[in-house]
Amino acid sequence: MTNPATLCSNLSINARGHLCFRGHDTLDLAAEYGTPLYLLDADRVRENCRTYLDTFLECFPAGSKPLFASKALSFTGIYRIMQEMGMGIDVVSSGEIHTARNAGFDLSQAFFHSNNKTDDDISFAMDTGVGYFVVDNPEELLAIQAEAERRGIRQKVLLRLTPGIDTHTYEAVNTGKVDSKFGQAIETGQAEKITVLALSQSNLDLRGFHCHVGSQVFTEDVFERAAEIMLRFIAHVRDICGYSPAFLNLGGGYGVRYIEDDPQIDIPRKIRDVAAAVNKTCAELKIPVPAILMEPGRSIVADAGLTLYTAGSVKTIPGYRTYVAVDGGMSDNPRYALYGARYTCYNAGRMNVPYEMECSLVGRCCESGDIIQPFLRLPAETGRSDTIAVCTTGAYNYSMASNYNRIPRPPIVMLHEGSHALAVRRERLEDLTALDL
Amino acid sequence: MTNPATLCSNLSINARGHLCFRGHDTLDLAAEYGTPLYLLDADRVRENCRTYLDTFLECFPAGSKPLFASKALSFTGIYRIMQEMGMGIDVVSSGEIHTARNAGFDLSQAFFHSNNKTDDDISFAMDTGVGYFVVDNPEELLAIQAEAERRGIRQKVLLRLTPGIDTHTYEAVNTGKVDSKFGQAIETGQAEKITVLALSQSNLDLRGFHCHVGSQVFTEDVFERAAEIMLRFIAHVRDICGYSPAFLNLGGGYGVRYIEDDPQIDIPRKIRDVAAAVNKTCAELKIPVPAILMEPGRSIVADAGLTLYTAGSVKTIPGYRTYVAVDGGMSDNPRYALYGARYTCYNAGRMNVPYEMECSLVGRCCESGDIIQPFLRLPAETGRSDTIAVCTTGAYNYSMASNYNRIPRPPIVMLHEGSHALAVRRERLEDLTALDL
Repeated sequence: MTNPATLCSNLSINARGHLCFRGHDTLDLAAEYGTPLYLLDADRVRENCRTYLDTFLECFPAGSKPLFASKALSFTGIYRIMQEMGMGIDVVSSGEIHTARNAGFDLSQAFFHSNNKTDDDISFAMDTGVGYFVVDNPEELLAIQAEAERRGIRQKVLLRLTPGIDTHTYEAVNTGKVDSKFGQAIETGQAEKITVLALSQSNLDLRGFHCHVGSQVFTEDVFERAAEIMLRFIAHVRDICGYSPAFLNLGGGYGVRYIEDDPQIDIPRKIRDVAAAVNKTCAELKIPVPAILMEPGRSIVADAGLTLYTAGSVKTIPGYRTYVAVDGGMSDNPRYALYGARYTCYNAGRMNVPYEMECSLVGRCCESGDIIQPFLRLPAETGRSDTIAVCTTGAYNYSMASNYNRIPRPPIVMLHEGSHALAVRRERLEDLTALDL
Repeated sequence: MTNPATLCSNLSINARGHLCFRGHDTLDLAAEYGTPLYLLDADRVRENCRTYLDTFLECFPAGSKPLFASKALSFTGIYRIMQEMGMGIDVVSSGEIHTARNAGFDLSQAFFHSNNKTDDDISFAMDTGVGYFVVDNPEELLAIQAEAERRGIRQKVLLRLTPGIDTHTYEAVNTGKVDSKFGQAIETGQAEKITVLALSQSNLDLRGFHCHVGSQVFTEDVFERAAEIMLRFIAHVRDICGYSPAFLNLGGGYGVRYIEDDPQIDIPRKIRDVAAAVNKTCAELKIPVPAILMEPGRSIVADAGLTLYTAGSVKTIPGYRTYVAVDGGMSDNPRYALYGARYTCYNAGRMNVPYEMECSLVGRCCESGDIIQPFLRLPAETGRSDTIAVCTTGAYNYSMASNYNRIPRPPIVMLHEGSHALAVRRERLEDLTALDL
């Protein structure tokens, strides 16, 4: 097998032949906290934030900021890190706002997304002092105006637009094209209409525009293309309304490596390319360079996460295949079931032996689709009680977890160099029935 | 639009032009309990149980019983109904066992499934007096034997076998074929091996065999074919070991109607056909007719469920399509995202107007794949604050719900003729952070 450090530098092998994560023996962690277990390398989260923060400082005007896209991973502890690092956040629901507030996060640095904010959400976000609403559609704009007027405040807003870019990623996470449930399309004239509408509202302070061209993007220049389309729109708006935005929010989406074959994105270089395109287009259009926001989620937390399971049965069906079943599954990681997602998997206690057994890693849910990863290789010695590691699970695993099959959700343990601590405790059986009458 | 009662008899329209469910005005229920809201028609659940119970009594020998497949819908109240009706249950985890116990369900009538029971599960199931273990594989069999021996008990078990039937249903819910993570294949000789192994264990009482050929099955004779294969295996086992099982468990799987175009299954007729096939094959093979178990889940609860949402934005993208966004989505119903599932949807307050607006019904999650149903028709008048009903959501909705986007899970309200009451309360924001440290 290959050296796990080539997937991510926080992976290593110790003298016992065990997989280590941020220097901690994963078998020791599994023994101490039980499985299934989500591990989160907090140091790696900080490093990933630092990459964005430093490059933003180098490349973009004052006021520019990376915003952590909470939907990738939302629990109290993660917002403490974001506060400490000076990151902004993107939140999409009252639940995320509540969780950030629970961490003491300064909500003036929160941007409230969602294609469908309810009246309760709008009210809750204003109660809690969320800095910016990213408005999706005219009904919502008017609902925010009405609530702001009722409260006698002027609410800062951005408008979500669709630049009409097809990123050729998986359909479900492709959100920048015109036919989208999100935002208002530039192509159809709806973007211009909502801008004029926003500028005419007495209690809204239009601060800029937002677009999001998709998730897990590897395409060379999609952000540059999006930025150029958005800046041309901004120039057009200046021409017709005399309005210049403070912010251009380019959304999230740099891809991460789930398997060795995935390309390695050089994020600083990519951001510098975006900055060059922004500066060039602004000069060409003779508009001031706006403060730039981006919303990385996956690229902040994905490679900071690793899930540990305990193997149960190893079942070989002669002439067909071998199934290795673990004590979790689609309830804690539905990404293969939803997207056919790829993952790198290890037998954490058997790192220095050949990985020659072709098998499918499956979960414990009573559903054939409960597959964590089909067609991978594990050691032939793999058996009941072995610890199995699935890498790069920091994004969209805990946040998408369910109690399907009435399985309690795993805890999150945060790792630091030399220490570790529980950040979210394991669900207990009593928790499952706590709301039952 | 068509009469909703043609989809299911518990749907109707009242004098106000509102959709009623089990005679209750759904707009009144939405106003009283809020949305998103899961409704469960408890009377319909009882009727569906009664259909199975009566037909079983008519068709099969003493000891035969339908077992409710809890994974379709597990919360305390549902097990109270199962206890009251005299149903057995199929459970797949300690969480389901705990929930059934919480309802006071007699666990001697529980059958414990799962392709991967952990040592903790085995111990918990014995602690709580679960009647039967349905053993998936040899490692598990030996683990159950060891624990039973330690306790000085004799544990009743069934063995899960795969008859090698491809039901041509959706891949993810197709579980009877040989290449499956579940059970031991007859074709490969592994079924015979595990039978011999089970019979040689001092603390296991082998009571029979189980198979499950898939979920949402409409194919004419799949249960008859499965029964015949299983009975031929039973005859073979008698010949080589002199062993005759008390039970043949044929699993679950009758399909339900999600949309008008789905076929209507006549369950009593289907069960009579299975009984005829069982009796004929047993006579032919000269073996006693075993007690028959089946495990209906979906066909017990699916059409007893209905989800209510509130519409937010209605967004028309000229030349593309119209999106109607609601205040829930893949967090409470991931079945379109996972399986491309079909649903019948209504504007619950506008039942007597033409349904002529082509649109996609989408959720509030920040993900393009968060679609409840694409390409349906709703009234052109549909707008913000309208109540939207999605029918036939009793199975695999609440049980698969997540907190994705940090959205609290909806409550379940149980309906009876003339009354309704909360059965699971709505998650609160505080619940979302209750486990955070």
